Amino acid sequence: MEGSTTAAAPAKRAKRTLRVAAISGSLRRAWANTGLIRAAAKMCEESIPELQIDHVDISDLPLVNTDLENTGGNVFPVAVEAFRDRVRGADCFLFASPEYNYSISGPLKNALDWGSRPPNVWADRAAAVVSASGKSGGKRMVYHVRQVGVFLDIHFVNKPEGFVQAHYPASKFDGDGNLIDPETEEQLRRILLSLQAFALRLIHGKTAA
Amino acid sequence: MEGSTTAAAPAKRAKRTLRVAAISGSLRRAWANTGLIRAAAKMCEESIPELQIDHVDISDLPLVNTDLENTGGNVFPVAVEAFRDRVRGADCFLFASPEYNYSISGPLKNALDWGSRPPNVWADRAAAVVSASGKSGGKRMVYHVRQVGVFLDIHFVNKPEGFVQAHYPASKFDGDGNLIDPETEEQLRRILLSLQAFALRLIHGKTAA
Amino acid sequence: MEGSTTAAAPAKRAKRTLRVAAISGSLRRAWANTGLIRAAAKMCEESIPELQIDHVDISDLPLVNTDLENTGGNVFPVAVEAFRDRVRGADCFLFASPEYNYSISGPLKNALDWGSRPPNVWADRAAAVVSASGKSGGKRMVYHVRQVGVFLDIHFVNKPEGFVQAHYPASKFDGDGNLIDPETEEQLRRILLSLQAFALRLIHGKTAA
Amino acid sequence: MEGSTTAAAPAKRAKRTLRVAAISGSLRRAWANTGLIRAAAKMCEESIPELQIDHVDISDLPLVNTDLENTGGNVFPVAVEAFRDRVRGADCFLFASPEYNYSISGPLKNALDWGSRPPNVWADRAAAVVSASGKSGGKRMVYHVRQVGVFLDIHFVNKPEGFVQAHYPASKFDGDGNLIDPETEEQLRRILLSLQAFALRLIHGKTAA
Repeated sequence: MEGSTTAAAPAKRAKRTLRVAAISGSLRRAWANTGLIRAAAKMCEESIPELQIDHVDISDLPLVNTDLENTGGNVFPVAVEAFRDRVRGADCFLFASPEYNYSISGPLKNALDWGSRPPNVWADRAAAVVSASGKSGGKRMVYHVRQVGVFLDIHFVNKPEGFVQAHYPASKFDGDGNLIDPETEEQLRRILLSLQAFALRLIHGKTAA
Repeated sequence: MEGSTTAAAPAKRAKRTLRVAAISGSLRRAWANTGLIRAAAKMCEESIPELQIDHVDISDLPLVNTDLENTGGNVFPVAVEAFRDRVRGADCFLFASPEYNYSISGPLKNALDWGSRPPNVWADRAAAVVSASGKSGGKRMVYHVRQVGVFLDIHFVNKPEGFVQAHYPASKFDGDGNLIDPETEEQLRRILLSLQAFALRLIHGKTAA
Repeated sequence: MEGSTTAAAPAKRAKRTLRVAAISGSLRRAWANTGLIRAAAKMCEESIPELQIDHVDISDLPLVNTDLENTGGNVFPVAVEAFRDRVRGADCFLFASPEYNYSISGPLKNALDWGSRPPNVWADRAAAVVSASGKSGGKRMVYHVRQVGVFLDIHFVNKPEGFVQAHYPASKFDGDGNLIDPETEEQLRRILLSLQAFALRLIHGKTAA
Repeated sequence: MEGSTTAAAPAKRAKRTLRVAAISGSLRRAWANTGLIRAAAKMCEESIPELQIDHVDISDLPLVNTDLENTGGNVFPVAVEAFRDRVRGADCFLFASPEYNYSISGPLKNALDWGSRPPNVWADRAAAVVSASGKSGGKRMVYHVRQVGVFLDIHFVNKPEGFVQAHYPASKFDGDGNLIDPETEEQLRRILLSLQAFALRLIHGKTAA
């Protein structure tokens, strides 16, 4: 599986900084998934400077309704346009979402759908999914997000996966939804590093190919 | 959800009238899935009097956010409470939804989620899903709805399935989203009769068992 | 699949005995899923006499290949014919299967496929799925079985679901794959009673409707 | 999304030849999915010399049963060992499979499972899936393969997808299962080129990162 062996030394190349659009599938103020994004942002600031977490809020998006578009010019409602700009400007994505009824939360699906309106702003970027949920940890939801990603042309990191049992056996979040569990922090770090590596691999592979 | 309690032989029992809560996953005014519900309502009025279609609008539901609940008393926002009442009062469900990005539309998932808040108002009822979509006809979406239905405790009709290629090979709907294709009408009729039969089977089986 | 035809009031009707075709998705001799079936069989013999567990072995089925059929007469290989007879004679089904690579085990899918060859021998029966697996307990597999069941026209029990973490936190099975955990036994009992109730509801509802 | 701008000229690098392990999910001699692989092999020989199709037969694999392994040394049955060697030696994968009962065919799932036994021989390679099936063209199956691929660490090409309605509106294959439809040939070519590009991107990106 080796590739090029040109003389140019890749090892010397500084890692480019990647902007990560991070989206929480829960709108609750104190919820754990938003807490995972806060923890990721803090972690990157402190120790993974090549990743910049941009927490993109989706709570003020209207329900998807293409009647709201000026279809002649693909002009979207203001909140949608702002959301799409943030997604379009990102190098990769981090989704942190609860599992609602064995699938994607309504608000997250709504946001994914708005971003898909032509031109699709998700295309050809790497992504990772983490989920703080009940006992399943989100295992029934993540694969629905991945199926959506096929159409959106998102490339998901395969490993490690990020299932967090939010309150089992003990709570991993405080009352404000802040992550307080060191083991989950370590798990989150490994996911961020895997996302970074896969995003860079796709970016560099594109120019090298 | 009670059934007959007469001592008479079941064979003589008149078919009870079933209220069908019909939900469109698209908020567009002129969209085909809402047209399928209008067609179903007209069909039942004219020739299946034991089914009463109640078209439940989901366009004014807020995005799911449990901060909006008064969790002490499970008091929901007014639009949510009204939606839940309509669902709770139904004997069975008809979902008519487009496929958005290979999965459930955001608005439909949002409605399913609101109905699931304790106490779950979907439980132990029969349902059918139809989809007017592009060339796939919704084949990637329906099984996500069914997975959600496991948690919601919905019993889906297995056959016939209701995939409608809305505009292929020719358009089956007029510019206002009204169904104009006799073959699709016949397909819809078979689905409604199958829903009726399965709903009655579950209702009568419960009292007989 | 006929039910009672007595004139007596349904309330007085004795529960009919149901034959349960039980299929293990693992071919390993000492594996936990086969152990779940043995435990179910013993439990029914001792305390649920209206359920008779018939453990149907699938290990000697050839890989599905319709070239092996005499398609003129739908004559199947001997092992396939015997398997199909056992399935056809059952009133409902119990699947006990590990999750292999986030989906249905190859052997179980192979058996489901053989049974589906026309005429489909699975049709219109109730079923439950249990899974003894790793930490996920089978949560990624069960919904694939359910999707298959739509085409096979199987009606799955929604609740309770039967996810067993076979060796976490402590092993629930001995070295021969026998169930030794009282809590899992209780879980299995609730699933069997739910399967019985749903199967009877479908059978009685059909004759009553 | 641009990456490195080092002086070394990637444009001059000759494309490396990729070995594609191609696996048919149908064991029928004259079946269309094996025909897709034959067509792909011929096409690559004639006009995409940097792709070498290696048609890996899975018909003589036993049903997965880890009792057949010498678990001390991970020694597999001879047919399994040979299969695993072919997979291990490939640079990327092409799956051509029918949809059986809305999911992966039993034989293909069985082969995927044997390859996953430690050490997993599928890991970190690109893959594409094509399906010649009935009217759905395989749309219910492909996403199950993709879910399996998460655990196997396979990176699937997102676009284009390869759904072939084998016999609708007219048959695209002759009586021996040979592809005779120029439009499907063109579709297959686009998929092969997309697989090649994605495989190279992953390979080059790994060394460049």
